[in-house]
Amino acid sequence: MCELLGMDCNTPTDIVFSFTGFASRGGRTGPHGDGWGLAFYEGPAARVFLDPRPCALSPLATFLRTNSIKTLQAVAHIRRKTRGKIRLADTHPFSRELYGRHWTFAHNGTVKNARSLSLGRFEPIGGTDSERAFCHLLEALRQDFPKQPTDPTALWEALAEVAGRIARLGTFNFLLANGEYLFARCDNRLCHIVRQAPFGRATLKDSELSVDFAAVTTPRDRVAVVATTPLTVDETWTVGEPATLWVFRRGKLLATLPSGEPIARPTPRGHTRGVTAR
Amino acid sequence: MCELLGMDCNTPTDIVFSFTGFASRGGRTGPHGDGWGLAFYEGPAARVFLDPRPCALSPLATFLRTNSIKTLQAVAHIRRKTRGKIRLADTHPFSRELYGRHWTFAHNGTVKNARSLSLGRFEPIGGTDSERAFCHLLEALRQDFPKQPTDPTALWEALAEVAGRIARLGTFNFLLANGEYLFARCDNRLCHIVRQAPFGRATLKDSELSVDFAAVTTPRDRVAVVATTPLTVDETWTVGEPATLWVFRRGKLLATLPSGEPIARPTPRGHTRGVTAR
Repeated sequence: MCELLGMDCNTPTDIVFSFTGFASRGGRTGPHGDGWGLAFYEGPAARVFLDPRPCALSPLATFLRTNSIKTLQAVAHIRRKTRGKIRLADTHPFSRELYGRHWTFAHNGTVKNARSLSLGRFEPIGGTDSERAFCHLLEALRQDFPKQPTDPTALWEALAEVAGRIARLGTFNFLLANGEYLFARCDNRLCHIVRQAPFGRATLKDSELSVDFAAVTTPRDRVAVVATTPLTVDETWTVGEPATLWVFRRGKLLATLPSGEPIARPTPRGHTRGVTAR
Repeated sequence: MCELLGMDCNTPTDIVFSFTGFASRGGRTGPHGDGWGLAFYEGPAARVFLDPRPCALSPLATFLRTNSIKTLQAVAHIRRKTRGKIRLADTHPFSRELYGRHWTFAHNGTVKNARSLSLGRFEPIGGTDSERAFCHLLEALRQDFPKQPTDPTALWEALAEVAGRIARLGTFNFLLANGEYLFARCDNRLCHIVRQAPFGRATLKDSELSVDFAAVTTPRDRVAVVATTPLTVDETWTVGEPATLWVFRRGKLLATLPSGEPIARPTPRGHTRGVTAR
């Protein structure tokens, strides 16, 4: 299993605080030592940093923690492989162009028999179930909408539908970003928080780091953070309902759509489902 | 005008030496201060580092110079914009997936009236003539070969033909890599060197750095370097003939194909055409 981290904001925001706690899970406080990746958006284009080495030991991760890159949207992933090899081609987030934008995708869970998912315009470069599911998903959107639809909700609904269908093959928690929207599907493990005024203090669970957001924000700032499990110990995170898709834009949760049927499976250890964790 | 740097090897090689001289041209010894990018291949996947800031002043460029990443193939670009803005979406190298591989592309020159180039499966994310030409070029290959052809030379010839056609619209020096082949088209400014045993010493033109390759190589190593102008002062670089396409694989020049008609235009200042520079 892997860990996901997404950020979506209405003002350019540094992801360093969240990434620091998250990065600790990649081989130090967590077992996710099979590579990591971090995509930052600047408009419709993403800059994707990938490293097949453990995040906690990666010089590139240290560089990113110490050289602030502000962004409106970011997607990060640390990997504990269940499928594929430890190599660049199998490292999330994966990225493709659709409708003249970069789409980036990171997955938590395993899609079984992913080879049964048909392909079209998008072909996998590596050997993971995740990238195959991503290629299938983008192709499904493109088939439904050869051009980007003028009504964005039509695309959200199509995405929720195809994601629900893929999820029947296994566990399909994911983050999908395109520089405008951040989509987050909860299968069995995902939570989010929207930080906005009045801002308070937050302390990381995985690192001895605390920040007073009131000191580094303006009253109009709004930042949504999505993660596999809560990153901080003193904030209220909303835990996702199984088989739902969150749609974020500019730090705001726009919609929560049903995405397939919830599948009965054991709740992951140490994770309380369906209640707000404090 | 921009500067190109490509490397193609038969053994994983550190691009730091060449990149150091090259990086100096991005805002220190050269005027190319409008961003830079560097793509490294690991098999069919590329890791692309992009920065819209001047290369010579970029913390990310410093990181790459001080943290060796060995690779069989790399493509770098420093930009002095003639079209588009200074932003991530307009920063080379551009990257797309085709045939289950990343293809990366960096361009030197200007393609006029690039909007006349038709698009299909690949859409530009930014606003440069370069990315549009790249999208057109990949689509032309895909139209000719929906699946990767078993005879690779058929694809080389198709590439040389479409590149020659695009070049009628302006100046089209480029590097195109896919993790297996490095293609380099000379319109009016491109040169290469193949370093192999017996290795000697080389001194950078743009930086006070010299390296004895004999001390860091084995007799079987072979490294091809392609650049807009020679990077070193004490090696023999082969200057490209106008309207030709070089095909490299594992550090070896496999073919030099005609690519369109040479167009009469002034030789750039400080560049001797068609002779071997020493």
